[in-house]
Amino acid sequence: MAANQEDVKLLGAVASPFVFRVQLALKLKGVEYTFVAQDLKNKSEELLKYNPIHKKVPVLVHNEKPINESLVIVEYIDEAWKGYPILPTHPYNRALARFWAKFIDDKVFIASWKSVFTADEEEREKNAKEAVEALQVLENEIKGKFFGGEEPGFVDIAASFIAYWSPLIQEIAGLQLFTSEQFPKLYKWSQEFLNHPIAKEILPPRDPLFALFKARYESLHASK
Amino acid sequence: MAANQEDVKLLGAVASPFVFRVQLALKLKGVEYTFVAQDLKNKSEELLKYNPIHKKVPVLVHNEKPINESLVIVEYIDEAWKGYPILPTHPYNRALARFWAKFIDDKVFIASWKSVFTADEEEREKNAKEAVEALQVLENEIKGKFFGGEEPGFVDIAASFIAYWSPLIQEIAGLQLFTSEQFPKLYKWSQEFLNHPIAKEILPPRDPLFALFKARYESLHASK
Repeated sequence: MAANQEDVKLLGAVASPFVFRVQLALKLKGVEYTFVAQDLKNKSEELLKYNPIHKKVPVLVHNEKPINESLVIVEYIDEAWKGYPILPTHPYNRALARFWAKFIDDKVFIASWKSVFTADEEEREKNAKEAVEALQVLENEIKGKFFGGEEPGFVDIAASFIAYWSPLIQEIAGLQLFTSEQFPKLYKWSQEFLNHPIAKEILPPRDPLFALFKARYESLHASK
Repeated sequence: MAANQEDVKLLGAVASPFVFRVQLALKLKGVEYTFVAQDLKNKSEELLKYNPIHKKVPVLVHNEKPINESLVIVEYIDEAWKGYPILPTHPYNRALARFWAKFIDDKVFIASWKSVFTADEEEREKNAKEAVEALQVLENEIKGKFFGGEEPGFVDIAASFIAYWSPLIQEIAGLQLFTSEQFPKLYKWSQEFLNHPIAKEILPPRDPLFALFKARYESLHASK
């Protein structure tokens, strides 16, 4: 399909690490798209139409067909467009990439998030401990510059919140879970990731992101 | 690779709906394999070697290389062997299949399981309500004989516990969430699924499965 026949829209919100995954995949692949910012406190008809089940971002709309769930969208992008390979070619390496992306979602993301954004202190501590254990597992998995080898791939895309969002929300909470001392390989990876020209270009600006999550943190802890 | 060079082992437990997914995928694909039953109360060195992170079944070991997580394994089987197509061909249909399989794991499975195997009554009721809501969403998605069309595919494999395990554990708990009146299309699907020759051949025998889960249910409720 020629580029001028494509209609690619991304329904998103700038602060979301899940939306960022899709942006990064589109940019790596060189796909032109329109970003349609969503107000998640006042959901648009377009969002409810294209994601009636979860009513969440990101939603990729490709020639009027919607795709939901960030990792499902990233795999779709890899299969629908040629060029930059996001997943590896060999079935075994593809399975490993899917395994680690799922590990990141199930074990790293949830615990990292709840270690900051949970009202109950005991729950926060339990999650902080689980986040550190999961990061330790990941630490032992980094072999090259990126999880994907010399260039970022599926696992790097899945892990992007570890490089940018995690240190930021931990700073707000006065936590230091992700340090260069405890996780030297993962820390080095995070620096490579943040300095990758495409990631760097599209990462959301730090100050408004910090202010947004700080307000969320304070409102959560004020309402106890 | 010729059939006689293949070494395919499945580390599993007969009662597990996640192990069943992998068995069904292998059988549909016509892959010969050895089933290595695991005692999950006394985990084998083989299991710890091949799944050091989650220490769970199923694990597929293909020529000494392990793959974990049931849906990751099913996709691997589809990519590593030719023949019966488990996922559709078109990227958009593949994305839909992955979306629904994830929906089944995240929304249907967890709530269905907790509606029976949770000690707290309020939690059980909350999960029963969520399970019914999620099944309602799925009910509206069945268009043909199977989710995958005329033959079972990725979503049917993911959904297999709805056809066999859910009614069984609900009977144990005296629950009737999944009825032909409330879910006519899903119920019809479940009958097609249970009568599919390959599914029928490998579903675990009902009586020992019932006894196993009844004992688990009674021990949970006795320990309150």
